[in-house]
Amino acid sequence: MKNLAPLPFTAVALTEGFWKSRQEVNRKATLPAEYRQCDETGRLAALDLAWKPGAPNKPHPFWDSDTAKWLEAASYSLATHPDAALEGLVDGVIRRLEKAQMEDGYLNSYFQNVAPEKRWTNLRDQHELYCAGHLMEAAVAHFRATGKATLLGVMRRFADHIDRVFGPKPGQKRGYCGHEEIELALVKLHGATGEKRYLDLAKFFVDERGRRPHYFEEEAKARGEDPGARHRSHEREPFGYYQAGRPARDLMRVEGHAVRAMYLYCAMADLAREYGDRALFAACVRLWRHATEKNLYLTGGIGSSKANEGFTFDYDLPNETAYAETCANIGLTFWAHRMFALTGGGSYLDVMERALYNGVASGVSLDGRHFFYDNKLAALGGGRDQHVDGAAGKHHRRDWFGCSCCPPNVARLFASLGGYLYASGKDGLYVNLYADSRALFAEQGVLLTQKTRYPWDGEVTLEISFPKSGGQTKGPSFRAFKLHLRIPGWCRSFSVKVNGMKVAGPKLVDGFIALERPWKAGDRVTLDLAMPVERVYCHPSVRQNLGRVALQRGPVVYCLEEVDHKAPVQNLSIPDTGKLRTAWKPKLLGGIVVIQGPAQYSSPETWGKGLYQPTAPKTHPTTFTAIPYCVWDNRKKGGMTVWIERG
Amino acid sequence: MKNLAPLPFTAVALTEGFWKSRQEVNRKATLPAEYRQCDETGRLAALDLAWKPGAPNKPHPFWDSDTAKWLEAASYSLATHPDAALEGLVDGVIRRLEKAQMEDGYLNSYFQNVAPEKRWTNLRDQHELYCAGHLMEAAVAHFRATGKATLLGVMRRFADHIDRVFGPKPGQKRGYCGHEEIELALVKLHGATGEKRYLDLAKFFVDERGRRPHYFEEEAKARGEDPGARHRSHEREPFGYYQAGRPARDLMRVEGHAVRAMYLYCAMADLAREYGDRALFAACVRLWRHATEKNLYLTGGIGSSKANEGFTFDYDLPNETAYAETCANIGLTFWAHRMFALTGGGSYLDVMERALYNGVASGVSLDGRHFFYDNKLAALGGGRDQHVDGAAGKHHRRDWFGCSCCPPNVARLFASLGGYLYASGKDGLYVNLYADSRALFAEQGVLLTQKTRYPWDGEVTLEISFPKSGGQTKGPSFRAFKLHLRIPGWCRSFSVKVNGMKVAGPKLVDGFIALERPWKAGDRVTLDLAMPVERVYCHPSVRQNLGRVALQRGPVVYCLEEVDHKAPVQNLSIPDTGKLRTAWKPKLLGGIVVIQGPAQYSSPETWGKGLYQPTAPKTHPTTFTAIPYCVWDNRKKGGMTVWIERG
Repeated sequence: MKNLAPLPFTAVALTEGFWKSRQEVNRKATLPAEYRQCDETGRLAALDLAWKPGAPNKPHPFWDSDTAKWLEAASYSLATHPDAALEGLVDGVIRRLEKAQMEDGYLNSYFQNVAPEKRWTNLRDQHELYCAGHLMEAAVAHFRATGKATLLGVMRRFADHIDRVFGPKPGQKRGYCGHEEIELALVKLHGATGEKRYLDLAKFFVDERGRRPHYFEEEAKARGEDPGARHRSHEREPFGYYQAGRPARDLMRVEGHAVRAMYLYCAMADLAREYGDRALFAACVRLWRHATEKNLYLTGGIGSSKANEGFTFDYDLPNETAYAETCANIGLTFWAHRMFALTGGGSYLDVMERALYNGVASGVSLDGRHFFYDNKLAALGGGRDQHVDGAAGKHHRRDWFGCSCCPPNVARLFASLGGYLYASGKDGLYVNLYADSRALFAEQGVLLTQKTRYPWDGEVTLEISFPKSGGQTKGPSFRAFKLHLRIPGWCRSFSVKVNGMKVAGPKLVDGFIALERPWKAGDRVTLDLAMPVERVYCHPSVRQNLGRVALQRGPVVYCLEEVDHKAPVQNLSIPDTGKLRTAWKPKLLGGIVVIQGPAQYSSPETWGKGLYQPTAPKTHPTTFTAIPYCVWDNRKKGGMTVWIERG
Repeated sequence: MKNLAPLPFTAVALTEGFWKSRQEVNRKATLPAEYRQCDETGRLAALDLAWKPGAPNKPHPFWDSDTAKWLEAASYSLATHPDAALEGLVDGVIRRLEKAQMEDGYLNSYFQNVAPEKRWTNLRDQHELYCAGHLMEAAVAHFRATGKATLLGVMRRFADHIDRVFGPKPGQKRGYCGHEEIELALVKLHGATGEKRYLDLAKFFVDERGRRPHYFEEEAKARGEDPGARHRSHEREPFGYYQAGRPARDLMRVEGHAVRAMYLYCAMADLAREYGDRALFAACVRLWRHATEKNLYLTGGIGSSKANEGFTFDYDLPNETAYAETCANIGLTFWAHRMFALTGGGSYLDVMERALYNGVASGVSLDGRHFFYDNKLAALGGGRDQHVDGAAGKHHRRDWFGCSCCPPNVARLFASLGGYLYASGKDGLYVNLYADSRALFAEQGVLLTQKTRYPWDGEVTLEISFPKSGGQTKGPSFRAFKLHLRIPGWCRSFSVKVNGMKVAGPKLVDGFIALERPWKAGDRVTLDLAMPVERVYCHPSVRQNLGRVALQRGPVVYCLEEVDHKAPVQNLSIPDTGKLRTAWKPKLLGGIVVIQGPAQYSSPETWGKGLYQPTAPKTHPTTFTAIPYCVWDNRKKGGMTVWIERG
């Protein structure tokens, strides 16, 4: 295993383009809007433990996790963009958390205020450890961003409490959370504190999962409930919904709730790395293949069904009823990043990039204040989405949700996005993603300045320099190292130059080319990734996409949106051949490349009355305009489709 | 309005073919199996009112309606096929009903035994009047079949009770049932008894529907419930689920629960006829057009969504998740028959025939002992239906249901099917449907003997004779009358001969041709309906069928079933051109015509790994075999599709 070290987001500045503008909107619009939502809905007041029966805004078991993710996001933002006002809000929330914590370290606004007698009695459903995990992530983020250890201290005390309550020793509970999260959080807490107990506790939680007798059955019996009464649709084996049907190392397929699955797999990858655990690693690889080869939307979305917010069966990827929860797509991003760091494999980054530019970026509006929970690949239009309380209609971003996990999840990812761009290892430096940015590899003494219009253009320039450090008046003039440049899976042709001289036949290994030489300050590497529009076809076992085609350019998946056409987009079809044009539209949807080309329109208007006829519908030639999927539903409401009829 | 009189099923004998064999299986297998189910599940014992809390088989509010429909079906069967053993079972059930009836006439096994204090307190949900209606239909059927008036007497007393409880006078309830049924039943009860009060009560129930203040709100308040707490998905206006959002005469579109809608529309057609009510008739025509022009499956199924067991929005006809409940398709048959009788319009019979041969006939297996509740137009196969508790899989007929409305509904329709074949009016005799049969028009003194292999062949011979009556030793030698022969909507070319002589240019009026002459005994009319295989295409606003084609021959809709192919049927496509062959298979599925022709197979096997590629799936030429939709799922379990990819 390569065990690469991702370059922390604090060492990376986004300087222009797609992610810079997303991050700016996140900082200026999303973070304040989400704070206000947490405040107005009672999530912050819940921390004061003063709710009384009958009063509004009754605390909810999930609430602390929303607050925690906002804290984490705000902390990341403070690290790159200090902001006294935001820091004041953060400190205020932390003071409330500190005050709420019990003597023994326990901290949960719902259980302390609403159901103190039920503490740790229903790990399966009640998200107690899940909330704790998100607060731990927030604590680590805040400590690293500000150096202040208050929240970290609070969460260490809570972790210590959990470490006393849970474990294999007599008197301890051998349980684990129905919604995974604390496992990966404890790994982070270990990273920030060096406390090995936290890592061991993460391992304990993963190792206990699926053990017999089943903890969820035992605790249900202890509550006096029928342990068989729970029912989860789409479960192949009992407790598959929680990825707890069998021990983690024996998992053969992605199953159940998609976000839970992703967070568990992240922890498994972390522990595989920390403990050199080959069985966990093998399980990760097996699950990765199953997820991405049979259960992945073109948009990088996963978890196709609303019924279980998760996986159904192989090759089942409905478009109109796609769930593809923003949190699941973000979880896939987290997992992919870890798998890449473990292995150095570029194919993990291909999936990560697919998710980021499509099913994750779609999760938030361009104004930063509206969010998708589920990221469907088709939506009905033509006025037919107005009256229907079903899967087909009413699919538009909203400003908040009762269970509002997705909005702050986007916020924390976007605020720390720089951390996904670069990495380093024994064999040199890695450029994972292309985005206009500056990256300081402090340990290696290298500053990379990346200039590019990616994803709208495939040309990338990297300038190498050596920053001064300590008392030096100038940096060194040469440094020898290997520079790994990712060649994305979508790219079928590329060329690379160093200082204008073409590099002959760079060998593509595991998704990367490596340039090794003594670099001097001012060296310029130019990478040109051919980025034509491609027609994409789907595996014929995905019945929903038979006879359909999609459009992709670079990492960006496109869609047809009703507002750009005078007709329902479902009635447009595009031929398998025929030239497709692209055009840069600087003023459209924050600046995008659109794709245009010939289409046929299957016209309801010329069909006449009646539903069925012995002659095929008439088609009329027309043209289409496709926009990036991630920016749909930012204009007039209407239909959308990613997969378009061929013909 | 023509006000035709359907020839009663007791005057029609099915002598060979499709419906004869269905009726025989119904009599020999279905009726005994359903009696056993009613017995074993406690439905019959419930009538003894002896259930005690904690005992098994707790009576259910719907149960009496299942028993009632079985009684009705058995009575019809007794009328055409006397059977002492069956009559004994029928009499036994009737004795239990008679004994159960209360002094005041009330009769309901659930309310009398389980919740006596709740009688008439929740008309919206509890199906009390619905059960009463089905028992009234049974009583009329039994009286007409056997001449015995016991059950009729019981139900007259119950109707009288209902007539005292409900009405516009002070102290009466101005309510109506959440599930329509009693309205059409009261019309039948009036027909059998001549009691005008029953007809007026039917009219009262229809007229009250949707009146403000809303009865369902008032009774909810009286129960101490929040009247706004009920929620029905897909409702465009409150109480649309019950067709009670507005007065019946103001209904503009089919909405809500499909079976309820059909039963109401039947009653509206009945009352339009009985009272010459033009506003009710106009509403029926409006609703008919909306139902059949925008909401009708190719199979004659209606009600596309499981969520409300009903209608969603125009042109929404999903295949895999189609609901198209057997009862709804039967209800459409009832309604179509009434609309035809009112108007003489053949287009109503086109829809009726479409439903009968497809979405109704599919409701029961060829062995008569297994039933579909929902009649989907596509099902997943390839082993992928084994593990999934969702819409896509596990779609096979079952031997009974907790709410088992469909099985006895099929039984009563099949047992009385002869009644849909012929009619008469002032302008002569009508042949509505083609089936090998004998029909005695007693009033006109005409016996029609129909010989045909329809629906497998379009040739029909009708022989005219004049039966002897009274003391006559021979019938008359001539009778002048007009004979109307239906030319089905699916038929694009036909010819007609009388005694071998071609009739020139018979005029097609409203779906019929009329032959008028002085007929003599032994005259033979031969009708030849051209019945080629047709490719059928769907209105382009039905997004689920874009790019798809179906096959139909005569009234029979075809499908591809996995058992006939070595591949998942979803991966087959058929070209828009190319010869399609038919073959008569006497030993297959009870004797069917299959359709065979060239197809392309989109092969998952040659695709390789990964979900997405820039080249279209490879296709391989192959052949397909299509079978009638109504007989699918009678062999090895597997996938099925009605709508096939074009290409």
